[in-house]
Amino acid sequence: MGNTFGQMFRITTWGESHGGGVGVVVDGCPPRIALTEADLQPDLDRRRPGQSKIVTPRKETDTVQILSGTYQGQTLGTPISMWVKNEDQRSEAYSEMASKFRPSHADYTYFAKYGIRAWPGGGRTSARETIGRVAAGAIAKKILREKFGVEVLAYVKQVQKIRAEVDPATVQMSEVESNIVRCPDLAVADKMIRLIDRVRRAGDTVGGIVEGVARGVPPGWGEPVFDRLEADLAKGMLSLPASKGFDIGSGFGGITMTGREHNDLFRAKNGKVVTTSNRSGGIQGGISNGALIYFRVAFKPVATVMHEQDTVDERLKNTTLKGRGRHDPCVLPRAVPMVEAMTALVLVDHALRHKAQCGP
Amino acid sequence: MGNTFGQMFRITTWGESHGGGVGVVVDGCPPRIALTEADLQPDLDRRRPGQSKIVTPRKETDTVQILSGTYQGQTLGTPISMWVKNEDQRSEAYSEMASKFRPSHADYTYFAKYGIRAWPGGGRTSARETIGRVAAGAIAKKILREKFGVEVLAYVKQVQKIRAEVDPATVQMSEVESNIVRCPDLAVADKMIRLIDRVRRAGDTVGGIVEGVARGVPPGWGEPVFDRLEADLAKGMLSLPASKGFDIGSGFGGITMTGREHNDLFRAKNGKVVTTSNRSGGIQGGISNGALIYFRVAFKPVATVMHEQDTVDERLKNTTLKGRGRHDPCVLPRAVPMVEAMTALVLVDHALRHKAQCGP
Amino acid sequence: MGNTFGQMFRITTWGESHGGGVGVVVDGCPPRIALTEADLQPDLDRRRPGQSKIVTPRKETDTVQILSGTYQGQTLGTPISMWVKNEDQRSEAYSEMASKFRPSHADYTYFAKYGIRAWPGGGRTSARETIGRVAAGAIAKKILREKFGVEVLAYVKQVQKIRAEVDPATVQMSEVESNIVRCPDLAVADKMIRLIDRVRRAGDTVGGIVEGVARGVPPGWGEPVFDRLEADLAKGMLSLPASKGFDIGSGFGGITMTGREHNDLFRAKNGKVVTTSNRSGGIQGGISNGALIYFRVAFKPVATVMHEQDTVDERLKNTTLKGRGRHDPCVLPRAVPMVEAMTALVLVDHALRHKAQCGP
Amino acid sequence: MGNTFGQMFRITTWGESHGGGVGVVVDGCPPRIALTEADLQPDLDRRRPGQSKIVTPRKETDTVQILSGTYQGQTLGTPISMWVKNEDQRSEAYSEMASKFRPSHADYTYFAKYGIRAWPGGGRTSARETIGRVAAGAIAKKILREKFGVEVLAYVKQVQKIRAEVDPATVQMSEVESNIVRCPDLAVADKMIRLIDRVRRAGDTVGGIVEGVARGVPPGWGEPVFDRLEADLAKGMLSLPASKGFDIGSGFGGITMTGREHNDLFRAKNGKVVTTSNRSGGIQGGISNGALIYFRVAFKPVATVMHEQDTVDERLKNTTLKGRGRHDPCVLPRAVPMVEAMTALVLVDHALRHKAQCGP
Repeated sequence: MGNTFGQMFRITTWGESHGGGVGVVVDGCPPRIALTEADLQPDLDRRRPGQSKIVTPRKETDTVQILSGTYQGQTLGTPISMWVKNEDQRSEAYSEMASKFRPSHADYTYFAKYGIRAWPGGGRTSARETIGRVAAGAIAKKILREKFGVEVLAYVKQVQKIRAEVDPATVQMSEVESNIVRCPDLAVADKMIRLIDRVRRAGDTVGGIVEGVARGVPPGWGEPVFDRLEADLAKGMLSLPASKGFDIGSGFGGITMTGREHNDLFRAKNGKVVTTSNRSGGIQGGISNGALIYFRVAFKPVATVMHEQDTVDERLKNTTLKGRGRHDPCVLPRAVPMVEAMTALVLVDHALRHKAQCGP
Repeated sequence: MGNTFGQMFRITTWGESHGGGVGVVVDGCPPRIALTEADLQPDLDRRRPGQSKIVTPRKETDTVQILSGTYQGQTLGTPISMWVKNEDQRSEAYSEMASKFRPSHADYTYFAKYGIRAWPGGGRTSARETIGRVAAGAIAKKILREKFGVEVLAYVKQVQKIRAEVDPATVQMSEVESNIVRCPDLAVADKMIRLIDRVRRAGDTVGGIVEGVARGVPPGWGEPVFDRLEADLAKGMLSLPASKGFDIGSGFGGITMTGREHNDLFRAKNGKVVTTSNRSGGIQGGISNGALIYFRVAFKPVATVMHEQDTVDERLKNTTLKGRGRHDPCVLPRAVPMVEAMTALVLVDHALRHKAQCGP
Repeated sequence: MGNTFGQMFRITTWGESHGGGVGVVVDGCPPRIALTEADLQPDLDRRRPGQSKIVTPRKETDTVQILSGTYQGQTLGTPISMWVKNEDQRSEAYSEMASKFRPSHADYTYFAKYGIRAWPGGGRTSARETIGRVAAGAIAKKILREKFGVEVLAYVKQVQKIRAEVDPATVQMSEVESNIVRCPDLAVADKMIRLIDRVRRAGDTVGGIVEGVARGVPPGWGEPVFDRLEADLAKGMLSLPASKGFDIGSGFGGITMTGREHNDLFRAKNGKVVTTSNRSGGIQGGISNGALIYFRVAFKPVATVMHEQDTVDERLKNTTLKGRGRHDPCVLPRAVPMVEAMTALVLVDHALRHKAQCGP
Repeated sequence: MGNTFGQMFRITTWGESHGGGVGVVVDGCPPRIALTEADLQPDLDRRRPGQSKIVTPRKETDTVQILSGTYQGQTLGTPISMWVKNEDQRSEAYSEMASKFRPSHADYTYFAKYGIRAWPGGGRTSARETIGRVAAGAIAKKILREKFGVEVLAYVKQVQKIRAEVDPATVQMSEVESNIVRCPDLAVADKMIRLIDRVRRAGDTVGGIVEGVARGVPPGWGEPVFDRLEADLAKGMLSLPASKGFDIGSGFGGITMTGREHNDLFRAKNGKVVTTSNRSGGIQGGISNGALIYFRVAFKPVATVMHEQDTVDERLKNTTLKGRGRHDPCVLPRAVPMVEAMTALVLVDHALRHKAQCGP
């Protein structure tokens, strides 16, 4: 259970890090949208390990294949099944991971829940699972862009204590992609990269914040009262591996203001309702108000470190475990396309739901 | 759409601030649980306006009535319908709110979405909607306590810049309820109350942070990969009125640590797996690990202030609006039972889902 | 669980025959539809006991009240809560039903499932539960009529062995309502009424067939592959009390034909695709083809008879039970509005789903 | 939308007859169930074309591959992805089907719905889609058998007017599989086979009835009021290609009885409640009563016939079309494993739901 996301634009992901591969089925995609693997691969490449020196070096091409749901390059309206074959299946003939629980990973909780776990590569808990989301998110982004004029993007806002200054209203994807840490504040990006590289060489890891942005969302998307747009965004973000927090608009920072200071005042402008500030983050009462949507997601430092740490094995004996081989010093550059994907999946789902109930 | 929460323990709320009342239908409640209105009213009283000088003075008894789903004081397993009649229906014969959008409220977004809105009292956007959640949450808390030995509670952690020191592992409900701001750090509680009262007299409002806690959750609750326990908690919290952020365990604060520092190390203790720290907040990979679950929810300052502010009316003319009459200086004391309710609803739903798939 | 029907137009019913009442919450209704109790009561009156000599004489007015979701006579887009208070609560101080299971009722199965049951009036198993469906169905019928030009109706096709000849393409609601058995074949209707009355006097019951019809459904409603239009209709019909079968178009009768005989041939007519026969019943591959939708629902004879019959009590002792007092000789006249309601609920749900995915 | 079935044991099928293949993702499968392809292939072989002279001769091995959700031959509790590659992809370089709608197929309705269709092999409307259901159903049957002691089977009850006598309480799978038409009444089976073969040679097709049976279902499975066990069975069956009707227990035949005759009387026997007859078909009020569950599904004659028939093309011109090449004279033998699959999927879903709400 729990491997499905969305109501009208619904994705189901599957797959373990070892086994046949990982994939996703998208149900509810509108028909007659041009779609080939070329629309998906760029985001998968942004998510891929080995793309730079500051991410995990695991070598995989993550080549996606569309198995169903399109015909002659167009969506049929039927389920789109996408698949990435597992390649990097080294014979971990002997591995400590088979019996020991990695600290702050999900090895123990999966074992506690299911009484069984696929230990190679972390099984279902591997970040490879996010391949399916990113592929589905690429479709969602395309629909938002082409059908609704909505642009979704994300970038690294903070690495440990290094914080970027970015204007979410104007930042461009090309700026995000201009460097390997995916921070559009170039001066700061360089510092971030050096920090991550230093941490990597020390066999350690760092976390930080990714900021997500949606521009062009019209007023009216979102549902009262449980499926608020920000509630679904929060769920989407907290479903990402290593995420520990979400806030939107003024967020945790807004609590130091008083109501008079915090309120976004309405003004009429060119026959539209606009706000003179945007502490709401583009959503009021769960429904978009036409302003920029922006929010932040906190990611903890990756749990695998190249140092010996205390842990327990399956027989409940105390022992130690040391990360070996590959090691991802910072999840943030690769989390950027994941945040974009979940944002787009939430938005396209609400776009279709809004159309169903309130459309002409 | 969007008025239903949960998969196996599923609630649907309904009602506007004006009209017949507000209510909730709970579907999936286990049978043969002792249940009468007396189990629900205490939490509704904690949520009720007019309970102290630092919350909105609206006078309502919020007396709940169980309309179905029980027989001779026991749950039947069939839907439990609960209802609170609307009482305080003053004839707002003339009101500016009929045509003007209150800043940072949902008046405009509802109008943009639906092309119609019930302006008296804010209609569906009123915090009265949360009555249904709190009533359903009281049932969820009872099931968790009696069937699973799980205790859920929440308290005010911060008001504007005033921050309490509370040990989530040991804090007692009696401490939370010992003062009107619901902060168990008594020295700080007094400061908070004075701040809120001062702000109230100034016709202004303040926000802050509520911390939620669940103790006794066994390892194994939660689902990969979208319905992670923390993802559903995040959704539940961000679905509460005025909430702007959620973080769990080390949360946004954890990003300044490195992975070596941040990892929770496993140790075996009395035949159980425990962690020597709890930066994970009791959840790893979306699944509970048996440790204390704790998280924070940011609430913005309430939007209604007793000062004239710029806004727009339904005909898109610029105008001003000033809050009149009642005014809630701080949502936090009343948000505490709401956070408890949503926490309990998420947990009981996952408890039943876990039982279905992995139970004996 | 299981008390919710529909995806985009979603209803949740609640209530037992004794207790506060019965009701329904409709979520997903489009906004700005004129709606008052006057739109609902006529169908509730058609469903009501005591409406004629050939149905159960239980005296209840079944007056519906809209508690939420409308403002000034228009739908808000928020949940519509509707309620019918229970009136006829005789003090069944002593009743055999408290301990004995009525044969072919759900007394035993509810007890086996839940370990508890509300025996007075049958509790949740009472046909009173269908009040919620019929009220929600009245809204669905209104939306179909006003927004989509679709007309839904049903009528009694057969009582025991007495079978009516009715043209589903032309039959009018006024013909259905012209007699108390709701059979538009007037010659046959009279025979049906006499049969039911004779059976009633003998303390016995009879079943039969209701035929449901939808006219004006455009091509394209329905979903592959599980939520086929006929699959959802089948589910809706088999969820009605006392129903035992469903078939559509040529149905069970079509199996005697060969494929050559059975195929509906396409022809172009006035720029539209039509079929020269309609053995498909207006649905092909789960999707409407623009032709008349028609299907049949078999209802068994009501289980309560005024004769002593063998049964078992809660302590698993053999005993006998004899129906007393009121007795419904034939469910068919009251099943007609139920079939209409479920038909309309399925269709409006699929209309909205189609709009979401494939609409302009 | 609509490609997902089930709540707790949830399957999503995907795939067109041409393209990468067809498959299914199963979410919610209990962990630690022994499972390999060898558990699935037998049912797929029973569903496969070309298995005998009386079914479509299309040559495919339909070899299933498990891509995820198992480890070392055991289920993990994570999604099980299963895939059958498409093999028989002849280059239908020129085909009338590209522009003409086959009568009584879903070519036209898909085109009307989506504005696009994958014509080769019928695309998503191909019976190949049922491969996913049958594979998932094989898992469901295994769980029912091993975890709950429930046996599911089906058989051909009637071909056109030839009707078999079968005792659903005692019939064995070996009897069903003893002949190519899958009718356990051997004398009649032979007549059926000769009829189908004669019809096949005439380029025509016949339909009939499959009877489904579940033995050993304990009292208490099923949900009031919409997700009744018979309602979900009806939906499952009417979601099968070519099905036109469903009835359970006494079904359409029961309407000629009176209530006195029709009622199943309860008796206590060995500390259990049994019924002296079983016109209810093992379900009362939507919940199993412990008796044998049995029901029938009507399948129309397959639409593709080897004769020229009137139809229309995509430009709405009248034309004719004649089936060529392969041709399935009777869907019934291959529908038997499909009916079993859907039955098992409904039952295992309700078993898990019952456990969640009412289990110990």
